[in-house]
Amino acid sequence: MKFVILAIFFGASVGSVYADDPETLHTTLNRQADAWNRGDLDAFMEAYWKSPKLTFSSGGETTRGWEETLARYRKRYPDRETMGKLRFSELETQMLGPDAALTLGRWNLERKEPAQGNFSLVWRKWDGAWRIVHDHSSSSKTP
Amino acid sequence: MKFVILAIFFGASVGSVYADDPETLHTTLNRQADAWNRGDLDAFMEAYWKSPKLTFSSGGETTRGWEETLARYRKRYPDRETMGKLRFSELETQMLGPDAALTLGRWNLERKEPAQGNFSLVWRKWDGAWRIVHDHSSSSKTP
Repeated sequence: MKFVILAIFFGASVGSVYADDPETLHTTLNRQADAWNRGDLDAFMEAYWKSPKLTFSSGGETTRGWEETLARYRKRYPDRETMGKLRFSELETQMLGPDAALTLGRWNLERKEPAQGNFSLVWRKWDGAWRIVHDHSSSSKTP
Repeated sequence: MKFVILAIFFGASVGSVYADDPETLHTTLNRQADAWNRGDLDAFMEAYWKSPKLTFSSGGETTRGWEETLARYRKRYPDRETMGKLRFSELETQMLGPDAALTLGRWNLERKEPAQGNFSLVWRKWDGAWRIVHDHSSSSKTP
Protein backbone atom coordinates (compact mmCIF):
# COMPACT_ATOMS: atom_id res chain seq x y z
CA MET A 1 0.00 0.00 0.00
CA LYS A 2 2.83 2.35 0.89
CA PHE A 3 4.17 2.01 -2.63
CA VAL A 4 0.81 2.89 -4.16
CA ILE A 5 0.59 6.03 -2.04
CA LEU A 6 4.14 7.00 -2.93
CA ALA A 7 3.29 6.44 -6.56
CA ILE A 8 0.57 9.07 -6.26
CA PHE A 9 2.73 11.68 -4.57
CA PHE A 10 5.55 11.14 -7.00
CA GLY A 11 3.37 10.79 -10.04
CA ALA A 12 5.68 12.92 -12.13
CA SER A 13 8.73 10.74 -11.55
CA VAL A 14 6.72 7.53 -11.85
CA GLY A 15 5.77 8.79 -15.31
CA SER A 16 9.41 8.70 -16.30
CA VAL A 17 9.35 4.90 -16.57
CA TYR A 18 7.63 5.61 -19.88
CA ALA A 19 10.52 7.73 -21.11
CA ASP A 20 11.75 5.00 -23.43
CA ASP A 21 8.40 4.56 -25.15
CA PRO A 22 9.00 6.96 -28.06
CA GLU A 23 12.05 4.88 -28.93
CA THR A 24 9.94 1.70 -28.77
CA LEU A 25 7.37 3.22 -31.11
CA HIS A 26 9.99 4.38 -33.59
CA THR A 27 11.53 0.91 -33.63
CA THR A 28 8.06 -0.53 -34.31
CA LEU A 29 7.59 1.88 -37.22
CA ASN A 30 10.95 1.05 -38.73
CA ARG A 31 10.09 -2.67 -38.50
CA GLN A 32 6.79 -1.83 -40.18
CA ALA A 33 8.69 -0.20 -43.08
CA ASP A 34 10.95 -3.29 -43.30
CA ALA A 35 7.85 -5.50 -43.61
CA TRP A 36 6.49 -3.25 -46.39
CA ASN A 37 9.81 -3.48 -48.21
CA ARG A 38 9.65 -7.30 -48.04
CA GLY A 39 6.17 -7.05 -49.61
CA ASP A 40 4.66 -8.43 -46.39
CA LEU A 41 1.51 -6.35 -45.89
CA ASP A 42 0.23 -8.59 -43.09
CA ALA A 43 3.37 -7.95 -41.04
CA PHE A 44 3.15 -4.26 -41.97
CA MET A 45 -0.35 -4.19 -40.47
CA GLU A 46 0.80 -5.75 -37.17
CA ALA A 47 1.28 -2.36 -35.51
CA TYR A 48 -2.34 -1.35 -36.18
CA TRP A 49 -5.09 -2.10 -33.67
CA LYS A 50 -6.82 -5.29 -34.85
CA SER A 51 -10.26 -3.90 -34.28
CA PRO A 52 -13.25 -2.68 -36.26
CA LYS A 53 -12.63 0.57 -34.34
CA LEU A 54 -9.30 1.29 -36.01
CA THR A 55 -9.63 4.47 -38.09
CA PHE A 56 -7.45 5.43 -41.04
CA SER A 57 -7.99 8.88 -42.59
CA SER A 58 -6.54 10.06 -45.86
CA GLY A 59 -7.65 12.31 -48.72
CA GLY A 60 -10.78 13.42 -46.90
CA GLU A 61 -12.06 9.90 -46.29
CA THR A 62 -11.95 7.66 -43.22
CA THR A 63 -11.59 3.89 -43.47
CA ARG A 64 -12.88 2.01 -40.45
CA GLY A 65 -11.57 -1.34 -39.24
CA TRP A 66 -8.31 -3.28 -39.43
CA GLU A 67 -9.55 -5.59 -42.22
CA GLU A 68 -10.83 -2.64 -44.24
CA THR A 69 -7.53 -0.78 -43.81
CA LEU A 70 -5.58 -3.84 -45.00
CA ALA A 71 -7.98 -4.15 -47.97
CA ARG A 72 -7.39 -0.46 -48.81
CA TYR A 73 -3.63 -1.00 -48.81
CA ARG A 74 -3.95 -4.13 -50.98
CA LYS A 75 -6.07 -2.24 -53.48
CA ARG A 76 -3.82 0.82 -53.68
CA TYR A 77 -0.58 -1.16 -53.69
CA PRO A 78 -1.36 -4.32 -55.70
CA ASP A 79 2.26 -5.27 -56.46
CA ARG A 80 5.85 -4.72 -55.37
CA GLU A 81 6.41 -2.10 -58.04
CA THR A 82 3.53 0.04 -56.75
CA MET A 83 4.65 -0.55 -53.16
CA GLY A 84 8.13 0.73 -53.96
CA LYS A 85 10.60 1.23 -51.13
CA LEU A 86 9.09 2.83 -48.03
CA ARG A 87 11.07 4.99 -45.68
CA PHE A 88 9.88 6.88 -42.61
CA SER A 89 11.72 9.98 -41.43
CA GLU A 90 11.47 12.92 -39.02
CA LEU A 91 9.71 10.72 -36.47
CA GLU A 92 8.72 12.63 -33.35
CA THR A 93 6.59 11.29 -30.55
CA GLN A 94 4.90 13.02 -27.67
CA MET A 95 3.38 11.06 -24.82
CA LEU A 96 -0.26 11.99 -24.15
CA GLY A 97 -0.25 10.16 -20.82
CA PRO A 98 1.16 6.82 -19.68
CA ASP A 99 -0.90 4.85 -22.20
CA ALA A 100 -1.29 7.13 -25.19
CA ALA A 101 1.06 8.82 -27.63
CA LEU A 102 1.10 10.86 -30.81
CA THR A 103 3.73 10.32 -33.50
CA LEU A 104 4.28 12.71 -36.39
CA GLY A 105 6.52 11.77 -39.26
CA ARG A 106 7.10 11.74 -42.99
CA TRP A 107 6.74 8.83 -45.41
CA ASN A 108 8.57 8.44 -48.66
CA LEU A 109 7.97 5.90 -51.43
CA GLU A 110 10.91 5.37 -53.74
CA ARG A 111 9.55 4.02 -57.03
CA LYS A 112 9.05 4.93 -60.69
CA GLU A 113 6.50 7.58 -59.64
CA PRO A 114 7.84 8.67 -56.26
CA ALA A 115 5.39 9.74 -53.59
CA GLN A 116 5.75 11.33 -50.19
CA GLY A 117 3.81 12.96 -47.44
CA ASN A 118 3.30 13.09 -43.71
CA PHE A 119 1.30 11.23 -41.11
CA SER A 120 -0.08 11.50 -37.61
CA LEU A 121 -0.41 8.32 -35.58
CA VAL A 122 -2.31 8.00 -32.33
CA TRP A 123 -1.14 5.07 -30.21
CA ARG A 124 -2.66 3.42 -27.19
CA LYS A 125 -1.07 0.93 -24.86
CA TRP A 126 -3.14 -1.95 -23.56
CA ASP A 127 -1.76 -4.95 -21.67
CA GLY A 128 1.74 -3.59 -22.19
CA ALA A 129 1.46 -3.47 -25.99
CA TRP A 130 1.30 -0.34 -28.12
CA ARG A 131 -1.09 -0.22 -31.06
CA ILE A 132 -1.89 2.46 -33.64
CA VAL A 133 -5.57 3.28 -33.07
CA HIS A 134 -5.72 6.11 -35.59
CA ASP A 135 -3.68 7.10 -38.64
CA HIS A 136 -4.16 10.28 -40.65
CA SER A 137 -1.87 10.31 -43.67
CA SER A 138 -1.50 12.95 -46.38
CA SER A 139 0.31 13.06 -49.68
CA SER A 140 2.36 16.06 -50.70
CA LYS A 141 1.16 17.60 -53.90
CA THR A 142 3.18 16.37 -56.87
CA PRO A 143 5.50 19.23 -57.85
CA MET B 1 -6.06 9.98 2.36
CA LYS B 2 -8.90 7.47 2.42
CA PHE B 3 -10.39 9.14 -0.63
CA VAL B 4 -7.14 8.94 -2.56
CA ILE B 5 -6.85 5.21 -1.85
CA LEU B 6 -10.46 4.62 -2.85
CA ALA B 7 -9.78 6.57 -6.02
CA ILE B 8 -7.10 4.06 -6.92
CA PHE B 9 -9.21 1.01 -6.30
CA PHE B 10 -12.14 2.44 -8.17
CA GLY B 11 -10.10 3.94 -10.94
CA ALA B 12 -12.60 2.87 -13.57
CA SER B 13 -15.51 4.71 -12.01
CA VAL B 14 -13.37 7.73 -11.12
CA GLY B 15 -12.63 7.95 -14.83
CA SER B 16 -16.29 8.52 -15.48
CA VAL B 17 -16.07 12.10 -14.20
CA TYR B 18 -14.57 12.76 -17.62
CA ALA B 19 -17.60 11.36 -19.36
CA ASP B 20 -18.87 14.81 -20.30
CA ASP B 21 -15.63 15.89 -21.94
CA PRO B 22 -16.48 14.82 -25.50
CA GLU B 23 -19.54 17.06 -25.27
CA THR B 24 -17.38 19.94 -24.03
CA LEU B 25 -15.01 19.48 -26.95
CA HIS B 26 -17.83 19.35 -29.51
CA THR B 27 -19.30 22.55 -28.07
CA THR B 28 -15.88 24.18 -28.39
CA LEU B 29 -15.66 23.10 -32.03
CA ASN B 30 -19.10 24.40 -32.85
CA ARG B 31 -18.15 27.76 -31.26
CA GLN B 32 -15.03 27.68 -33.38
CA ALA B 33 -17.15 27.29 -36.52
CA ASP B 34 -19.37 30.17 -35.36
CA ALA B 35 -16.26 32.37 -35.02
CA TRP B 36 -15.16 31.39 -38.54
CA ASN B 37 -18.59 32.27 -39.87
CA ARG B 38 -18.35 35.73 -38.26
CA GLY B 39 -15.01 36.16 -40.04
CA ASP B 40 -13.24 36.20 -36.67
CA LEU B 41 -10.10 34.13 -37.25
CA ASP B 42 -8.59 35.13 -33.89
CA ALA B 43 -11.58 33.68 -32.03
CA PHE B 44 -11.49 30.65 -34.33
CA MET B 45 -7.90 30.05 -33.24
CA GLU B 46 -8.79 30.20 -29.51
CA ALA B 47 -9.17 26.42 -29.27
CA TYR B 48 -5.64 25.83 -30.53
CA TRP B 49 -2.71 25.57 -28.15
CA LYS B 50 -1.01 29.00 -28.11
CA SER B 51 2.44 27.54 -28.37
CA PRO B 52 5.25 27.23 -30.88
CA LYS B 53 4.74 23.48 -30.32
CA LEU B 54 1.28 23.41 -31.92
CA THR B 55 1.40 21.29 -35.08
CA PHE B 56 -1.00 21.52 -38.01
CA SER B 57 -0.62 18.96 -40.81
CA SER B 58 -2.33 19.12 -44.18
CA GLY B 59 -1.46 18.19 -47.75
CA GLY B 60 1.77 16.49 -46.75
CA GLU B 61 3.15 19.51 -44.90
CA THR B 62 3.30 20.39 -41.20
CA THR B 63 2.98 23.95 -39.94
CA ARG B 64 4.52 24.53 -36.52
CA GLY B 65 3.34 27.13 -34.02
CA TRP B 66 0.11 28.94 -33.21
CA GLU B 67 1.17 32.17 -34.96
CA GLU B 68 2.26 30.25 -38.05
CA THR B 69 -1.02 28.33 -38.14
CA LEU B 70 -3.01 31.57 -37.92
CA ALA B 71 -0.83 33.05 -40.69
CA ARG B 72 -1.52 29.96 -42.84
CA TYR B 73 -5.28 30.42 -42.37
CA ARG B 74 -5.05 34.16 -43.18
CA LYS B 75 -3.13 33.40 -46.35
CA ARG B 76 -5.44 30.63 -47.56
CA TYR B 77 -8.64 32.41 -46.58
CA PRO B 78 -7.95 36.10 -47.25
CA ASP B 79 -11.61 37.23 -47.32
CA ARG B 80 -15.13 36.27 -46.27
CA GLU B 81 -15.93 34.85 -49.70
CA THR B 82 -13.00 32.42 -49.56
CA MET B 83 -13.85 31.56 -45.95
CA GLY B 84 -17.39 30.65 -46.91
CA LYS B 85 -19.66 29.07 -44.33
CA LEU B 86 -17.96 26.41 -42.22
CA ARG B 87 -19.79 23.46 -40.75
CA PHE B 88 -18.42 20.56 -38.75
CA SER B 89 -20.21 17.21 -38.75
CA GLU B 90 -19.83 13.57 -37.71
CA LEU B 91 -17.86 14.62 -34.63
CA GLU B 92 -16.68 11.67 -32.59
CA THR B 93 -14.33 11.84 -29.65
CA GLN B 94 -12.47 9.15 -27.80
CA MET B 95 -10.71 9.88 -24.54
CA LEU B 96 -7.05 8.80 -24.54
CA GLY B 97 -6.80 9.21 -20.77
CA PRO B 98 -8.08 11.81 -18.33
CA ASP B 99 -6.16 14.64 -20.01
CA ALA B 100 -6.02 13.71 -23.68
CA ALA B 101 -8.56 13.07 -26.40
CA LEU B 102 -8.86 12.43 -30.12
CA THR B 103 -11.68 13.94 -32.19
CA LEU B 104 -12.48 12.86 -35.73
CA GLY B 105 -14.89 14.80 -37.85
CA ARG B 106 -15.73 16.27 -41.22
CA TRP B 107 -15.50 19.89 -42.34
CA ASN B 108 -17.56 21.48 -45.02
CA LEU B 109 -17.13 24.91 -46.62
CA GLU B 110 -20.21 26.26 -48.32
CA ARG B 111 -19.08 28.80 -50.90
CA LYS B 112 -18.86 29.38 -54.66
CA GLU B 113 -16.30 26.57 -54.92
CA PRO B 114 -17.42 24.23 -52.15
CA ALA B 115 -14.78 22.25 -50.28
CA GLN B 116 -14.91 19.46 -47.75
CA GLY B 117 -12.80 16.91 -46.01
CA ASN B 118 -12.02 15.35 -42.68
CA PHE B 119 -9.81 16.09 -39.71
CA SER B 120 -8.19 14.49 -36.69
CA LEU B 121 -7.67 16.64 -33.61
CA VAL B 122 -5.53 15.70 -30.64
CA TRP B 123 -6.49 17.56 -27.48
CA ARG B 124 -4.73 17.94 -24.17
CA LYS B 125 -6.12 19.30 -20.95
CA TRP B 126 -3.90 21.47 -18.79
CA ASP B 127 -5.10 23.45 -15.77
CA GLY B 128 -8.65 22.36 -16.52
CA ALA B 129 -8.67 23.75 -20.08
CA TRP B 130 -8.69 21.69 -23.26
CA ARG B 131 -6.52 22.75 -26.19
CA ILE B 132 -5.95 21.32 -29.66
CA VAL B 133 -2.26 20.38 -29.71
CA HIS B 134 -2.33 18.76 -33.15
CA ASP B 135 -4.61 19.00 -36.18
CA HIS B 136 -4.32 16.86 -39.30
CA SER B 137 -6.83 17.99 -41.93
CA SER B 138 -7.43 16.59 -45.42
CA SER B 139 -9.48 17.75 -48.38
CA SER B 140 -11.65 15.35 -50.31
CA LYS B 141 -10.70 15.20 -53.94
CA THR B 142 -12.90 17.44 -56.04
CA PRO B 143 -15.33 15.13 -57.87
